[in-house]
Amino acid sequence: MSDEMSIITPRLPRGFVELLPKDQIVFNQMLVIIKEVYERFGYLPIETPAVELKEVLLAKGGGETEKQVYRLATKTGETDMCLHFDLTVPLARYVAQHINELAFPFRRYQMQKVWRGETAQRGRYREFYQCDIDVIGARDPMTDAEIPSVIYSVFTKLGLKDFTIHISNRKILNGYLEAIGLRETSGAVLRAVDKMDAKDLSARLQEAGLDNVRSDDLMRLITLQGANNEVLTPLKEWPLENDLFEQGVAELALVTDGIRSLGVPERNFSLDMSIVRGLDYYTGTVYETRLDDYPKLGSVCSGGRYDNLCGFYIDRDLPGVGISIGLSRLFFQLKEAGLLPHANATTARVMIALADRSSIAYALEVAKDIRHDHINCEVYLEEARIRKQMEYAGRLGIPYVIIIGADEVAKKMVSLKDMAKAEQKLVTLEMAIAIIRWERDHS
Amino acid sequence: MSDEMSIITPRLPRGFVELLPKDQIVFNQMLVIIKEVYERFGYLPIETPAVELKEVLLAKGGGETEKQVYRLATKTGETDMCLHFDLTVPLARYVAQHINELAFPFRRYQMQKVWRGETAQRGRYREFYQCDIDVIGARDPMTDAEIPSVIYSVFTKLGLKDFTIHISNRKILNGYLEAIGLRETSGAVLRAVDKMDAKDLSARLQEAGLDNVRSDDLMRLITLQGANNEVLTPLKEWPLENDLFEQGVAELALVTDGIRSLGVPERNFSLDMSIVRGLDYYTGTVYETRLDDYPKLGSVCSGGRYDNLCGFYIDRDLPGVGISIGLSRLFFQLKEAGLLPHANATTARVMIALADRSSIAYALEVAKDIRHDHINCEVYLEEARIRKQMEYAGRLGIPYVIIIGADEVAKKMVSLKDMAKAEQKLVTLEMAIAIIRWERDHS
Repeated sequence: MSDEMSIITPRLPRGFVELLPKDQIVFNQMLVIIKEVYERFGYLPIETPAVELKEVLLAKGGGETEKQVYRLATKTGETDMCLHFDLTVPLARYVAQHINELAFPFRRYQMQKVWRGETAQRGRYREFYQCDIDVIGARDPMTDAEIPSVIYSVFTKLGLKDFTIHISNRKILNGYLEAIGLRETSGAVLRAVDKMDAKDLSARLQEAGLDNVRSDDLMRLITLQGANNEVLTPLKEWPLENDLFEQGVAELALVTDGIRSLGVPERNFSLDMSIVRGLDYYTGTVYETRLDDYPKLGSVCSGGRYDNLCGFYIDRDLPGVGISIGLSRLFFQLKEAGLLPHANATTARVMIALADRSSIAYALEVAKDIRHDHINCEVYLEEARIRKQMEYAGRLGIPYVIIIGADEVAKKMVSLKDMAKAEQKLVTLEMAIAIIRWERDHS
Repeated sequence: MSDEMSIITPRLPRGFVELLPKDQIVFNQMLVIIKEVYERFGYLPIETPAVELKEVLLAKGGGETEKQVYRLATKTGETDMCLHFDLTVPLARYVAQHINELAFPFRRYQMQKVWRGETAQRGRYREFYQCDIDVIGARDPMTDAEIPSVIYSVFTKLGLKDFTIHISNRKILNGYLEAIGLRETSGAVLRAVDKMDAKDLSARLQEAGLDNVRSDDLMRLITLQGANNEVLTPLKEWPLENDLFEQGVAELALVTDGIRSLGVPERNFSLDMSIVRGLDYYTGTVYETRLDDYPKLGSVCSGGRYDNLCGFYIDRDLPGVGISIGLSRLFFQLKEAGLLPHANATTARVMIALADRSSIAYALEVAKDIRHDHINCEVYLEEARIRKQMEYAGRLGIPYVIIIGADEVAKKMVSLKDMAKAEQKLVTLEMAIAIIRWERDHS
């Protein structure tokens, strides 16, 4: 740091992004929509600190995660604290810590930033929002049916129509592999299934000593296509004797019924045996959500059922099911695809411009009355020619300008300008408010 | 990290706090109220990353701040990044970086967490929310009059009535000290004024060679009391010839007029010459907000006018005015004082309980219809006796339970239980929805 006044280039570290206000308004609106849907289903909000103890955060230990974790240091050296890299580990710690104060099944939503020391590349952010729901202590597969209904509501309310929630149950594949004696090598097989890389999968199956008949049968299973009943019926009749497999199929059938009862259209969910999601975490229903016209974006909302959330922190079995929306990534993807939800460009619905400074008291009273009627109103308070004030309102995209000068003060009226139509008329304040409100509520 | 499954005590680092869902709902509601007021005045949202480059963050250099900054490290060592410790430095960087894409005056609000490596003590948090507004590029004192109107709206809508916004103008004290030749030593004097420590102030003034007459005069100035006009009138007539002093008084008079035009009651703002706020940052109007019945809490919302926001990053003068609400601290203070705004204990307005599992499809359809009518509805999806389900709803504070069993399915009705009154009746779904909505909108 220099002690003198020297200019430092204003910039962000690599991998960090921020928005201009116009985009921030849209982003915030998306956050509100997601929050409202989560609350519509009765999920409760929690927010955990950005910081966790290193010991707590890395309880699971090692690998890629540990490399990506940001540790906190002060001037005197490294501390025992880290920034969280997801919301699942903090949830597990939260539930274990407050277990006696929570009612189970515990439906919680959590929408926060997380940080990962990713090598910076296109579409990879070191800081991003996750919007998660989980139901902790839920054992019944019916909860698994609720999750797609939440996803359906979120994406529909975000203005998206052409999306598909792909659903499988890990017990089906696990049971299948168990039945054919492949349990031990299933990691490699599952990875190949996950990538839907048929060539790689064939190779893996051959390596594992599978004959062509078995290999073809498995390929047929994971590529089952068609309407949901056209997937479910053959699954129910699959010539395979394995408890886990049959349990998975039974759960999937129950979940499908539940999803239908909750009103999710058939075209927005698809039973898809190629969905794997995470190798050692999920144990039952799994989800991936894709935008039909943008397959390259991959899954924009994923999750599934797990057997035990809090095992590292408490000696009690807490199964659950949950999903995560990576909102920062989704935002930029939708923006690039031109699919962002419509939003106002600005917070103010009307700006008050001053034709002369002596009218300021009247202008402020008008602003007070407009705000009192729950309409967002900005006053241009700098001394400037009316033209400059109008340019400012135009640049911000404020739909109406009320112009106030000696004439308006004398008549106790206001001049209301519709910025889109470039029309101006002298009206009562009540009339102006009615027009601005109508436009706000019908645009 | 151990490789085996060993239990790690779930806990937070010192100085970090989190809320149970009931409190989180209240906290989030306070955030929404503040956001709505900020938007009511046309402020635009921005959100900057939690992380800034060290060079950018510490451009101002040194002192206490630098000691409190958390630096980021990865496994391979310290990075060039830090967590922000307030929202003002990030704002300055943001404005300088995006100056050509912003319209000025730039009204922005920003509500985010900040981090400081405080030595942990009661009421000091290492992570807390700040809710800031600033108007950048605003030179006219009329903007200084808008700020108290925003503060008044925020605190009123938070359900507080007995609060006072204390207002001064730094030019008045600075001009006074300049007039009596005390400019160079004014730091010590200002600190004494800030603390309102009359004994210390007398000593400082004697040290500076001030005679008793001058000393008494200054004491009289900073202890001016009474209705706002009873402060303003003597200020206008104060027997002192100094341009800065006179400019400060003139600005304060203008600001007072503006505050009145914006409808802030006299009892909620108070001209108070003892307000100083920060020694080298503020240059004009300054604010402190105090809860009348809780003087020990100190200022719960402070700020003021500054001459130049972005000087470290760009060669352009950008004066402005702003305030900050430290929401985390305020939340815990209000909680302790029993002054938290009333809020629902839970997100769900109604829970659906199942008298028998065979009614699940009907129950899910009922839930779908309730949610479609914009009412938050949870379904108890685990298999459990009805009594256990009711206990769960009671524990969460969900006001209504709809019970569904074979009888309700057969009659196409629902049993609606009012949890507070412990009354249950068989009604149509439409009737149930009407009752739940009425209660929600009138409680």
